[in-house]
Amino acid sequence: MTRKTRPGGANGSTAADPFLRNFWYVAAWSDEVTRAPLARVLLGDYLVLYRTEDGTAVALENRCPHRNLPLSEGNLVGDSLECGYHGMVFDADGRCSHLPGAETVPDWACVRAYPVVERRGWVMVWMGDPAAADPALAPDHHGWLDDPDWLTIKGYCDAQCGYRLILDNLLDLSHLAYVHASTTGNRALAEQATISAETVGDGVRVTRWMSDVPPAQALIDYAGYDKPIDRWQYSEFIAPSYIYVNNGTEAAGQGVTAEQRRESQGKWGFVVYHALTPATERTTHQFWAMSIPRAFVPEDRIETFEAQMRHIPIEDLLVYEAQQTAIDLDPAAGGDVRPLGMIDADQGLFAMRRILQRLHAAERRAAG
Amino acid sequence: MTRKTRPGGANGSTAADPFLRNFWYVAAWSDEVTRAPLARVLLGDYLVLYRTEDGTAVALENRCPHRNLPLSEGNLVGDSLECGYHGMVFDADGRCSHLPGAETVPDWACVRAYPVVERRGWVMVWMGDPAAADPALAPDHHGWLDDPDWLTIKGYCDAQCGYRLILDNLLDLSHLAYVHASTTGNRALAEQATISAETVGDGVRVTRWMSDVPPAQALIDYAGYDKPIDRWQYSEFIAPSYIYVNNGTEAAGQGVTAEQRRESQGKWGFVVYHALTPATERTTHQFWAMSIPRAFVPEDRIETFEAQMRHIPIEDLLVYEAQQTAIDLDPAAGGDVRPLGMIDADQGLFAMRRILQRLHAAERRAAG
Amino acid sequence: MTRKTRPGGANGSTAADPFLRNFWYVAAWSDEVTRAPLARVLLGDYLVLYRTEDGTAVALENRCPHRNLPLSEGNLVGDSLECGYHGMVFDADGRCSHLPGAETVPDWACVRAYPVVERRGWVMVWMGDPAAADPALAPDHHGWLDDPDWLTIKGYCDAQCGYRLILDNLLDLSHLAYVHASTTGNRALAEQATISAETVGDGVRVTRWMSDVPPAQALIDYAGYDKPIDRWQYSEFIAPSYIYVNNGTEAAGQGVTAEQRRESQGKWGFVVYHALTPATERTTHQFWAMSIPRAFVPEDRIETFEAQMRHIPIEDLLVYEAQQTAIDLDPAAGGDVRPLGMIDADQGLFAMRRILQRLHAAERRAAG
Repeated sequence: MTRKTRPGGANGSTAADPFLRNFWYVAAWSDEVTRAPLARVLLGDYLVLYRTEDGTAVALENRCPHRNLPLSEGNLVGDSLECGYHGMVFDADGRCSHLPGAETVPDWACVRAYPVVERRGWVMVWMGDPAAADPALAPDHHGWLDDPDWLTIKGYCDAQCGYRLILDNLLDLSHLAYVHASTTGNRALAEQATISAETVGDGVRVTRWMSDVPPAQALIDYAGYDKPIDRWQYSEFIAPSYIYVNNGTEAAGQGVTAEQRRESQGKWGFVVYHALTPATERTTHQFWAMSIPRAFVPEDRIETFEAQMRHIPIEDLLVYEAQQTAIDLDPAAGGDVRPLGMIDADQGLFAMRRILQRLHAAERRAAG
Repeated sequence: MTRKTRPGGANGSTAADPFLRNFWYVAAWSDEVTRAPLARVLLGDYLVLYRTEDGTAVALENRCPHRNLPLSEGNLVGDSLECGYHGMVFDADGRCSHLPGAETVPDWACVRAYPVVERRGWVMVWMGDPAAADPALAPDHHGWLDDPDWLTIKGYCDAQCGYRLILDNLLDLSHLAYVHASTTGNRALAEQATISAETVGDGVRVTRWMSDVPPAQALIDYAGYDKPIDRWQYSEFIAPSYIYVNNGTEAAGQGVTAEQRRESQGKWGFVVYHALTPATERTTHQFWAMSIPRAFVPEDRIETFEAQMRHIPIEDLLVYEAQQTAIDLDPAAGGDVRPLGMIDADQGLFAMRRILQRLHAAERRAAG
Repeated sequence: MTRKTRPGGANGSTAADPFLRNFWYVAAWSDEVTRAPLARVLLGDYLVLYRTEDGTAVALENRCPHRNLPLSEGNLVGDSLECGYHGMVFDADGRCSHLPGAETVPDWACVRAYPVVERRGWVMVWMGDPAAADPALAPDHHGWLDDPDWLTIKGYCDAQCGYRLILDNLLDLSHLAYVHASTTGNRALAEQATISAETVGDGVRVTRWMSDVPPAQALIDYAGYDKPIDRWQYSEFIAPSYIYVNNGTEAAGQGVTAEQRRESQGKWGFVVYHALTPATERTTHQFWAMSIPRAFVPEDRIETFEAQMRHIPIEDLLVYEAQQTAIDLDPAAGGDVRPLGMIDADQGLFAMRRILQRLHAAERRAAG
């Protein structure tokens, strides 16, 4: 009795669908999903998110099939959502369980229910064929996000740009030298890095190794470096739109390779998680977080540190949105899909785009 | 010498015209039309409204044919409107009577004059072929609106939604249970109503009868009910986009039918008038009013009563506009024209849409 | 090594290009171009303007070819502009001189450099084929703009209308009677003018002569007239979108013709310069100025005079933008290109449009 996906509608995969559907996407931070219904547009679909009385997160199509009122305008009755217009009640599985004034409920009176998995602060929904929604496929690489020995700073940006522009940013960390020069970046990041990129399945790993370089300001401030350091950055793209970055440093000259330090932060470092969920082709929900061992930030400097770290995504946001403006002004520029040229630091970006293109082609083939 | 309607222009009926033209539409409340010209977009046309020195309302095309300046930017000179750019003067019939610096006026120097009828506070304009503008066709069902023994509360909403969404609202009053639960509605309206709908010519009448039900809060507060009541609601749709509602109540168990009480408010009740004039396909001028016998509202409670009644159209507006948002997000949803499914309470809505479709088809045929 | 214009792109001339390209356009007032990069959209192109250390104005494409970030988000390094994202450095000729972390620079790493000429407060850029950019073609008719014996009042409007609507305004000065009736205009300007228009090459000259007419308010206030005057206005259109106006007056009855006074302001008058640069088809950069001999405005009244003069472009702006609103509401109106009818005062407007059409046709032919 689950409602059929309308052919050609925003809810279904079509030839022209700009989004990958058969993936888990972050819909909200866990603390955003409460007993007050939350409306959110994901991949062009309109969803409502709420929790049942036992705390389970629910994601339904946010559109009463009777008269199109968003169900987020209604009220929770137990585990069900009552439409705020004429009182139709929808259970957590999307079925209508009550039609006021009637004894039976018509077949069409149901809304799409999106499979949900919740892990370490991320409420993830499956945007494609529900039959293929395997919780084992949901990302679980964000292990430090809820580790009590780590300090986590997280936030949300309603980014007015396509999601690939944000992936680009995170797969080429030379931008720290220019965009974040007052904190995590200095020129060495752009001028003295050895870069390699490798594609592993549906993921990309970019490794940046800077040997015997001056420390950036945040490294002077928090790690106490006053001499050259070795620094490594390891950015991983996980399809369709997740990024994991490991940043580490060590006093220079110890002869250890970046590869050996892939999992380590060395003397001082941190990790960064980004989950990017397209709202539309030109807007993106950006769920960002950075996690750092508590021992790396003195208790009395946490407030300053957090303020600095919260400023970084804003610096980046100005970049993405200015890029989108420039792209929109030039219809020949090919959106954010087709960059004009490639430099060495772009290997990861191009590898990521090739994976997205391959996955899109596969979804199109599967859709017939 | 009246200017010809340009073929294919916004001023004329075309195959793709989304609006019914050969009808009287409310353009403004009477007190909005003064000696200061008022600009308003109706059915995609740009109009200017003003009064002559004897108080007669005038409606002209709001566009100087010389250089497209809205005439509403100009000034009244006697009964005529002088363009604020180069001083062309247009009389109330749309003819240019003065062209500064010239002795004759070219043929093209005229604007469309819209026939106007003014009744009981409504300034109505005829949006179609002027030759067919029969004042006898203008609505005159709003008799209580200017009755001194009745208290009238009226207002205007610049609704960001298609006009049919508002008609839907008023032809299915079960929504009072959910949208207006703090005043005129309670659950009985949705759960215990007997509903019938009949089509009479170009109109629809929906009758709702609730027998032996608890009184809603406003009925407790103002009619003093403390026992079950009978309640009736009678919604009439008048083409192209007028609604008249009669609400009545009586202590339960007197054995009188809703049909017998069609014209009566019983012990306590009120009437509601809505005149809906599309501005564009997605925006609507909503002229709303409710009228109630003065005896039904104690003098010292009029202020509170009025505040409550003014809140009701705002509650509805949030619904219509949220519906429009949801509709806009789904290109496959068919705009507000084609709801997904029908329940019993929707008989009136579907009958109204069938009438609109029939009238549209007739106008298209007539336009050739 | 200059980057090729992409075919069909916003940077190149195409069949559907709504703009004339092979002309000098004002991009900014001289004092707007500094060592802080300025972003501006001209003819649909996105430009960045700045000065080198020796003060030379530079205009580059505002789009890093690497990742589309506007270069205006970056910083100046000497005479070059460093991209704020990954540090590519572009010299004033648009060539990339440094790619961080690399020893060579790829061919595609350059931006379009627009030829620049700066004269008397106007920074002008050549928007077409750089090979055809002849400084001798740059306008230099604005001689009073920087004359120390003249008082100049200047400003900028981000006009939300097509540029032709502003040209129209300035080629038919009868509008002073209606739009500027509190200062420079009175009815005589519309009712008693003798008008002639002549086309000379790519320019239009409109002469308005008013003989033995009452003085307008500003002429009473500043020139001290208390008797009828002769007044002349001489508007010159210079392709593609410049206007020069000379306004003069003299006590009536001295038998001198407007033609003889073309270059003179008589007893009291002023000149007006407008440089109009389309941003998009519906938005225009309006650089306006009025210059008046200092002797014509008493020292202690300069502040009042300036406030009055600054109000005039605002009065006009309300007109243009209201026209654009009316035009946008009527898809059949033909944009601002095709006015409905012509009156005597419109000779100059029609002549100007014929020139624009001829120049457009020539550019299209040249583009093949």
